Amino acid sequence: MEAATQQISRSPITRKEYPLPLSMNDQEGIDQFLAHHPGKKVVVVQGMGFVGSVMGLVVANALTEEYAVIGIDLPDASSYWKICSINEGIFPVLASDPKIGEYYTKTREKKNYYATHDPYAYSLADVIIVDINLDVRKKASSKKELEDYSIDLTPFKKAVESIGQYCRPDVLVLVETTVPPGTTQKLVKPILDDCLSKRKLAKGELKLGHSYERVMPGTRYVDSIQNFYRVYSGIDERSADAVEKFLRTVIRTDEYPLTRLGNTNATEMAKVLENSFRAMNIAFMVEWSRLAEEAGVDIYDVVNAIRMRPTHQNIMLPGLGVGGYCLTKDPLMASWARVNLFGGEEGLQQSEKGVQINDKMPLYAFEYLRSQYNRSFAGKRVLLLGVSYLNDVGDTRYSPVEGFYDWLEVEGCDISLHDPHVLYWEEKDAWVNQDLDELLKKDFDIIAITTGHREYRTNGGLIEKLMRQPANFIYDTIGVLSNEEIEKLSSRHTVKVIGRGDL
Amino acid sequence: MEAATQQISRSPITRKEYPLPLSMNDQEGIDQFLAHHPGKKVVVVQGMGFVGSVMGLVVANALTEEYAVIGIDLPDASSYWKICSINEGIFPVLASDPKIGEYYTKTREKKNYYATHDPYAYSLADVIIVDINLDVRKKASSKKELEDYSIDLTPFKKAVESIGQYCRPDVLVLVETTVPPGTTQKLVKPILDDCLSKRKLAKGELKLGHSYERVMPGTRYVDSIQNFYRVYSGIDERSADAVEKFLRTVIRTDEYPLTRLGNTNATEMAKVLENSFRAMNIAFMVEWSRLAEEAGVDIYDVVNAIRMRPTHQNIMLPGLGVGGYCLTKDPLMASWARVNLFGGEEGLQQSEKGVQINDKMPLYAFEYLRSQYNRSFAGKRVLLLGVSYLNDVGDTRYSPVEGFYDWLEVEGCDISLHDPHVLYWEEKDAWVNQDLDELLKKDFDIIAITTGHREYRTNGGLIEKLMRQPANFIYDTIGVLSNEEIEKLSSRHTVKVIGRGDL
Repeated sequence: MEAATQQISRSPITRKEYPLPLSMNDQEGIDQFLAHHPGKKVVVVQGMGFVGSVMGLVVANALTEEYAVIGIDLPDASSYWKICSINEGIFPVLASDPKIGEYYTKTREKKNYYATHDPYAYSLADVIIVDINLDVRKKASSKKELEDYSIDLTPFKKAVESIGQYCRPDVLVLVETTVPPGTTQKLVKPILDDCLSKRKLAKGELKLGHSYERVMPGTRYVDSIQNFYRVYSGIDERSADAVEKFLRTVIRTDEYPLTRLGNTNATEMAKVLENSFRAMNIAFMVEWSRLAEEAGVDIYDVVNAIRMRPTHQNIMLPGLGVGGYCLTKDPLMASWARVNLFGGEEGLQQSEKGVQINDKMPLYAFEYLRSQYNRSFAGKRVLLLGVSYLNDVGDTRYSPVEGFYDWLEVEGCDISLHDPHVLYWEEKDAWVNQDLDELLKKDFDIIAITTGHREYRTNGGLIEKLMRQPANFIYDTIGVLSNEEIEKLSSRHTVKVIGRGDL
Repeated sequence: MEAATQQISRSPITRKEYPLPLSMNDQEGIDQFLAHHPGKKVVVVQGMGFVGSVMGLVVANALTEEYAVIGIDLPDASSYWKICSINEGIFPVLASDPKIGEYYTKTREKKNYYATHDPYAYSLADVIIVDINLDVRKKASSKKELEDYSIDLTPFKKAVESIGQYCRPDVLVLVETTVPPGTTQKLVKPILDDCLSKRKLAKGELKLGHSYERVMPGTRYVDSIQNFYRVYSGIDERSADAVEKFLRTVIRTDEYPLTRLGNTNATEMAKVLENSFRAMNIAFMVEWSRLAEEAGVDIYDVVNAIRMRPTHQNIMLPGLGVGGYCLTKDPLMASWARVNLFGGEEGLQQSEKGVQINDKMPLYAFEYLRSQYNRSFAGKRVLLLGVSYLNDVGDTRYSPVEGFYDWLEVEGCDISLHDPHVLYWEEKDAWVNQDLDELLKKDFDIIAITTGHREYRTNGGLIEKLMRQPANFIYDTIGVLSNEEIEKLSSRHTVKVIGRGDL
């Protein structure tokens, strides 16, 4: 069975199945596409994921130049459907940002965004943007204590090699992937040089740079690429100039000026430092939440009071945990780079500790809940409100709800899921209900708010429905309930809010 | 000799010496003062230090009420001069804020700010504001590794007792001291109740609250008390109401609305959390600075690039270390409270770690410098530019320059000091030069920028003078030199900037 399913790639959006291609050759498709765009510069985006597919869209809708854009990805089960989907007229990313639809419609009209799996595309590119994933593998104890982690660079190196085997010697390669600092200089550059040498081509003409997007899923998805500050660098000045020239055609640099840094190590470091800063600031709040609970303090009130200070506006709040693709791994990238690329004796201890603390948050939330049911936790009917990792978006990658869900499942709870933004929870292979009213007609023992979606915040209708529930335990892991709501619910249920102690 | 000097208190501002009073009795002075202010409410401020003396000034210049203000402090060597100074017409705090002078002149005209050492003043007070210090004693290894710390509450308790022994039973006691969370409720309240009981007075009328200022030394000293957001709480609602009513007469609450929190634990926690947040954010950057140095990255450029993001504007910079009265101890206060007042099993590990890392920063700076001189470090002529802990102010409390200075001294260096804002470095009992031109006529081997004062930033004249110095080592521990300045200086000297690696 498994061998058979690997021959197809299924879209999680349309559920349509695509047989994997038998040949790598799509030269005809590529040539036909480019025949419509004579004289235009060709931009190839490598990696059609959450960032690459939208970056392709933004380049296809560049501000001051008309590009022919080719998206490229692997012809395997997890990626091939994206290629087909783009070419068939269904954008492979579901997002609440209306600009995604607008931009995609324009590219369909202009026919300037094509997707393929054939690396032949690289040979035609003026610019190649690397937007593939580079993952960190974590090893954790059963208590979710981060014990070790590793970065397997093999797929990334292979992807760079496939560029080097085809690209023109004067191409601009722009790495946008979040990588361990040092990667562009110490890995990408040697691989590309080596490939060109083997092809007996001159190495001196290649331009290589690094720049990172600051993509945020949600309603401003496109803007977070096109209308936002961007940092870039080049392997040398000529490369940096080429990156700048290209970015100016794509990004609103008049409103959001570009920042050039001295070398690619610097921009790579800036990216992971940004995310580590946030991850560490969340980890920092974890202990304070525990103290608040012990001291009968409402940490949300405290943080709101502190946020009045302009210098403290971004102090974070506690919650169920930290999720998403970046904050959960980027601090480890830098730590890894320090030891493995720069000969440091040790990694970034505090940044690693931050990840470790954050990774344990869902366990704390679970254990508290578990402690309320000394004997009869199994069979409890549990409703989780929210499965995505972030308010008001449908992104479930590394969602902290996952760990919480897993432990409930192990304990034999009967779990129902609601999320207005998630139809299907890929990581858990589970369907998610969107109809809260319908759901709440059923009886639950425990109702846990696990994502801070707008639908759950100061929602009088929801509170009324919760009042009619037999559930004796309302568990707000995010702090979305107001004091008034807590008071009202407390008259009927046990209400516990993470980070809010009772005096 | 020592016994003799303990009988006087010397002003570090005027150098005038005051014999300590032989009697605690100043009833006549207090009564005479109040005779000028019939019908006015009396506010007593306990503690005439950096915060209390200015708080007294702000209350004496309240917005919507005329108060008679009495400052009170101990008749000992370190404090008595403040009492005398206030009464003689010299404000005991030197500050670059012109409002200090303006406000003080007004109180001299209105004769509404008197200082004393006699606790009899408490018996006349409608409001008593507690602004005394509460210190954390740190125990560190020779390598400045924080090994242990303790909080001796004895002086604080004694100060509260002296209030309880005299105060009216219906007084409002407002604690402004930074205290371990839980202090007002678990220590101050029982002490005051106990005192009133012993005096056979009713306990039910006492009002007790906590509110913290966010004083910043510098040009906006007064504004940081009067024109800034303030958080407050009471031991009960009546107390919180009384605190609010009082603060409204003193602070511009129309522009900077007050925030009431649920209990005194919450406001006490908010205060130390604010400072822990900053301390931890600095500690976080320490490791990244090391990585930047190893990776040939300029951390200042990276941080400036990151600060373009509105959510990341307050990311901190590395430097020589962390100083001042708050950031160096407040995280430990909360950690102490967790274990000692709320029965927590462990303290706030990360916050303690943050203090530990910050405390070690000057040692790193020293050790790097030391590593440049394998044999002949002794006798080197070293000029330190800046001794205060913060740019553009003269506050030397817990300055990180202290540790740096100590090690240089141990190594037998010949150290000269410059600081435009510090005449006399109390902690080191050392005079500080203000004339940089004159100083730089001498020859130095090492010139280290140790505080980021304006005078050292993009100062072409200074760079020219440094160019003429024989000093072969220019050491910028703060990152004040621009790229151009570094390039210029490098043509003649070895230039090292902390957090800036060479590729």
